[in-house]
Amino acid sequence: MGIAIISPNRNPSVWVQKIKEIDDSIDIQIYPNITRKDDVEVVLLWQHPKGILKEFSNLKLICSMGAGVDHILSDETIDPNLPITRIVDDKLTFSMTNYCVMGVLNFHRQITRYSQQQANKNWDMTNPEIDVHVGVLGVGELGGDVIRKLKSLNIKVSGYGNSAKSGLDFPYYYGDELELLLKKVNLIICLLPLTNETEDFLNKDFFRKCSTGTYIINVARGKHLVEEDLLEAIREGQISGALIDVFRTEPLPTDHPFWVEEKITVTPHIASVTNPDAAAPQIVENYNRLLNNQFLKNSIDRRKGY
Amino acid sequence: MGIAIISPNRNPSVWVQKIKEIDDSIDIQIYPNITRKDDVEVVLLWQHPKGILKEFSNLKLICSMGAGVDHILSDETIDPNLPITRIVDDKLTFSMTNYCVMGVLNFHRQITRYSQQQANKNWDMTNPEIDVHVGVLGVGELGGDVIRKLKSLNIKVSGYGNSAKSGLDFPYYYGDELELLLKKVNLIICLLPLTNETEDFLNKDFFRKCSTGTYIINVARGKHLVEEDLLEAIREGQISGALIDVFRTEPLPTDHPFWVEEKITVTPHIASVTNPDAAAPQIVENYNRLLNNQFLKNSIDRRKGY
Repeated sequence: MGIAIISPNRNPSVWVQKIKEIDDSIDIQIYPNITRKDDVEVVLLWQHPKGILKEFSNLKLICSMGAGVDHILSDETIDPNLPITRIVDDKLTFSMTNYCVMGVLNFHRQITRYSQQQANKNWDMTNPEIDVHVGVLGVGELGGDVIRKLKSLNIKVSGYGNSAKSGLDFPYYYGDELELLLKKVNLIICLLPLTNETEDFLNKDFFRKCSTGTYIINVARGKHLVEEDLLEAIREGQISGALIDVFRTEPLPTDHPFWVEEKITVTPHIASVTNPDAAAPQIVENYNRLLNNQFLKNSIDRRKGY
Repeated sequence: MGIAIISPNRNPSVWVQKIKEIDDSIDIQIYPNITRKDDVEVVLLWQHPKGILKEFSNLKLICSMGAGVDHILSDETIDPNLPITRIVDDKLTFSMTNYCVMGVLNFHRQITRYSQQQANKNWDMTNPEIDVHVGVLGVGELGGDVIRKLKSLNIKVSGYGNSAKSGLDFPYYYGDELELLLKKVNLIICLLPLTNETEDFLNKDFFRKCSTGTYIINVARGKHLVEEDLLEAIREGQISGALIDVFRTEPLPTDHPFWVEEKITVTPHIASVTNPDAAAPQIVENYNRLLNNQFLKNSIDRRKGY
């Protein structure tokens, strides 16, 4: 029994090192140099070449190397009976939340306005704050944490998801109630999982339903956002600006209009990055659970897509 | 019995309105049109002309129109037996804290670096975070709140004050232990009260004791900071940058070097602004307490200076 790591756009050496530190006896092969395919029972995936898993006849478990599994579920050639696990990492949550809170506070306290005033040596004390009410799309592990932290700062916040939930200590909207949420809030944070239903969620129709001047933060996946619709909504003044960390094509091409749109702040997919220190023990634990026919941790529900 | 408002650089009309809404019978005179000086038993002060209070022979109470009282205590002509009260305002705390948290997160997540990278269309995912440990100077109403909120975001934070304290749930240093604090932290937030002891606290010697690359946030008073020493420490690379909201001269003169120093972010004294909605009821309550010989709320200790 062994592990194969298939992450063509990421150097997996630190993953190998961290796994070996925990259990040096685990057999690890690295794509594209996988010669003993029948020995592979577990794969660690990050943006693998579609269809490649069919080459592994003894495969029993697929582990995402991050919090998201959309890169796995979008490969329709994968056996639907194989279990899939994801990484749950407090550090990942810490980083994602603090990035989002930073975006909220920079909007609330108008950091862009003050930086322009500084450039013009303009001392203007009027209206120092924009009253902010945040709408968080997706109230799972990450969205739930952002909501809790914003509440602790006494910032108004509401959540949105695709299904009814009870026992929440914040206003929550779901399904068809999106328009109700968008009327109340003036800042949207997208933390949705990427599924067929949520692809292109932030589109022309969504922006039209927003309150005028709403600010957008997207830290989920590039495919949630129709990028040309955002640019149009910003140029029309319907959307006041955006902080965008994820893009349909990454790295962001140099001719992409987001680089030069002054109302859009771009960061290079760094809101949160999976930390192999936290992830490797989870991989090894599920490897051992598989060996011993035990219940797997952090396995996802394929029907839901997360 | 009546009130006089003396705030030459601030329009007091909203204060008059808010006080009258609570008790229309209160007699209010406004500087410089105070004709019945003997009727004045309470003064509301914000940066009054030094020496002016000697004109009011029946004065019984001095109310600061803000959280600070340094503008009152620096007038040595004032009768040392007169009680002085300050404003305590949750909204003021909310704004101050969120401004400080914004500054901490922008340092932690390197917003300036990413804005330069965006200008250069440079996609660089390496080292996305600076590990931050915040030192808060002053752990009273405002500093204590900043510390609690940073802790709720799981950001490392320590406090510093001038006297021993017990029962705190964060690392605390006082008096001579300043150097121990400065070795541990890489971001300083100054929320000290302004007294003879704390004037010029942020000076050449202070910066020299900081860890290399420390970031400075001053939201207390302009006189806490020796401005030319900060510029020198930034140019030497000892201090990595600063977010400054208060200045020795306000409005900041157009020829002041802070406007154009790219590592300094300047805001026009807006971190928090006293809200007359919250302040007026406190003024009226103390006015009535004075009438009825009751204990005054939020009165300050002149020996301590806050």
